[in-house]
Amino acid sequence: MKTPRQTRLAQTLPASVPFVGPETQERKRGKVFAARLGANESVFGPSPRAINAMQKAAHDVWMYGDPESYDLTHALAKKHDVAPENILVGEGIDGILGYTVRLFLEPGDTVVTSAGAYPTLNYHVAGFGGNIVTVPFTGDHEDPKALVAKAHEVGAKIVYLANPDNPMGTWHYGPMIDDMIAALPKGCLLILDEAYIEFAPQHTAPDLDVTNPQVLRMRTFSKAYGMAGARVGYAIGHAENIQAFNKIRNHFGMSRISQAGALEALADTTYLAETLEKVAHAREHLYQIAQDNGLTALPSATNFVTMDCGRDGAFAKRVLAELLARDIFVRMPFVAPQDRCIRISAASEADLALFARALPEALQAASR
Amino acid sequence: MKTPRQTRLAQTLPASVPFVGPETQERKRGKVFAARLGANESVFGPSPRAINAMQKAAHDVWMYGDPESYDLTHALAKKHDVAPENILVGEGIDGILGYTVRLFLEPGDTVVTSAGAYPTLNYHVAGFGGNIVTVPFTGDHEDPKALVAKAHEVGAKIVYLANPDNPMGTWHYGPMIDDMIAALPKGCLLILDEAYIEFAPQHTAPDLDVTNPQVLRMRTFSKAYGMAGARVGYAIGHAENIQAFNKIRNHFGMSRISQAGALEALADTTYLAETLEKVAHAREHLYQIAQDNGLTALPSATNFVTMDCGRDGAFAKRVLAELLARDIFVRMPFVAPQDRCIRISAASEADLALFARALPEALQAASR
Repeated sequence: MKTPRQTRLAQTLPASVPFVGPETQERKRGKVFAARLGANESVFGPSPRAINAMQKAAHDVWMYGDPESYDLTHALAKKHDVAPENILVGEGIDGILGYTVRLFLEPGDTVVTSAGAYPTLNYHVAGFGGNIVTVPFTGDHEDPKALVAKAHEVGAKIVYLANPDNPMGTWHYGPMIDDMIAALPKGCLLILDEAYIEFAPQHTAPDLDVTNPQVLRMRTFSKAYGMAGARVGYAIGHAENIQAFNKIRNHFGMSRISQAGALEALADTTYLAETLEKVAHAREHLYQIAQDNGLTALPSATNFVTMDCGRDGAFAKRVLAELLARDIFVRMPFVAPQDRCIRISAASEADLALFARALPEALQAASR
Repeated sequence: MKTPRQTRLAQTLPASVPFVGPETQERKRGKVFAARLGANESVFGPSPRAINAMQKAAHDVWMYGDPESYDLTHALAKKHDVAPENILVGEGIDGILGYTVRLFLEPGDTVVTSAGAYPTLNYHVAGFGGNIVTVPFTGDHEDPKALVAKAHEVGAKIVYLANPDNPMGTWHYGPMIDDMIAALPKGCLLILDEAYIEFAPQHTAPDLDVTNPQVLRMRTFSKAYGMAGARVGYAIGHAENIQAFNKIRNHFGMSRISQAGALEALADTTYLAETLEKVAHAREHLYQIAQDNGLTALPSATNFVTMDCGRDGAFAKRVLAELLARDIFVRMPFVAPQDRCIRISAASEADLALFARALPEALQAASR
């Protein structure tokens, strides 16, 4: 009996988790959170039509989901006015990011991203043996010019940009992204993560151009569509890249219930519009709460608001801990200088009232 | 603008699909199937308690699933009388197979499996740059001794055995598997795929031994629990191996609805017992239908029955085509000599009546 050896790469990997889930924290605390404002989920939930479709599909769950996600793929193609060959439906952006790294990144290749940007991207890059090179945020924005310059400098295979970005909630307008695309090094792939795009002002998304093989855009049902637990994301891109995923993806990986829910959520444009309005309202409320407490809220194009606690990372960390101790689940940026902030998801009036009550106490306790 | 190059490995991969889904076939035919008997799904469905739990969870789908699948992991640990550290919940056996290959197989390493065994394993092995070496079935059974002998001969890193096996439905008893385990080459991992184990006679599964790091056992909610579309599988094994998956798995990959459903399905042991009885009854019915048509049914320890059409692969293929033309979705083994057979999933009386009516016509048409 001899333990099978993991791959040389796997042996080097830490047993890392991109995020600790709120349930894990609740188990450690021995107490559930009163308000779940840390994962940028949408408490406004999916469309009732989507819930209804999922409940109906629960009866059909004895059948595997359609491995082509045909209906959803075609509906998304229609929505975006591209061909179905330009759409890949997958198990959330997290899943698709993993596939993308696997498909394009040789061990030793380099990925350029922003310091403190989405850690799940870094997790996948490490997991496939790639190197991460970062550039700092500039004025709390990801910096497209610096990202591209660094990509040229290090010969990056992939460059990652979230627009709007997480964890700061800031954004760039389409023309700035188009300039970035035009300046990409030859053969370098831009992963343009647009998970929060529905919440953003007009002209934040550059026009779709699926003739450009250097850009892969990622969207999700986890945020504006309120279906984080269903695991449905999609990529939009050049047909050749999109079809390449068929060589490696888990063809029967999609939940049948999730497919049915996403299709119906997509169709209910009225509910989406209502959600966007609720989120806009919640953002305003969060700006006000920040102001009431002498904090600076960053203008947000997402379903969360990032608040500058006005001091260093250690202070913000204490504020966070005090909020958690008051049963409010929030998160904060990992990296300085963004780690002077805390990040609060848009939520119901009831949830925001709990936060509004806890914040002054937390600030006071953290200042002691 | 220059197309980003896929990895050297990805460039060598065909755009392959392990199986063509029934929905794809329906779209090509322009007509839905009257009976869906080809994917070894369970038309008896999940427990009503599981359906109810999934319907309730649909309201909570705005939240990500628990990345630890804590409740389900602990319930499974209790059921199998092992520690939670010995259980990995994942996105179906398909998903876990992919993770396993990625974790243990270096490019160029060899995997030994049976010719005509589960193609999704081969798909993942190719996808991570491994080599597949096969041994033939012996008397329509996978051959544990031949598998181990070949593993020694080629220095295999992984050997794969399904027990009971798919596509033939045959099985070995536990002691035979224990002998196989004892004879494994040092450092070689046995993936023991027990997707169909609940349908098998007592003593088909060897006793669990999670102290042995050379064995990884895979189970699923897709078959006996009737939840193929939910994508919930699990692995049981040595804690060190199980924990290693945390280095590479998609931590937020599980659907929250599926987690809730699987937990409740597991608890409803009465419903499981009823399903197993229905499947046993359907198998008897299928044996009878085979006999009525002069075909030889293989004794099955699964939720399907494989029927020897008595001639060559070309003939069985014609029978299959004639069944499909009569709106009956079935599949057949890919590889000679098993490809003389067709494979029919256990199903409702109504579905089996449709099959019983179509089969003699199909045989006659195929004989012309």
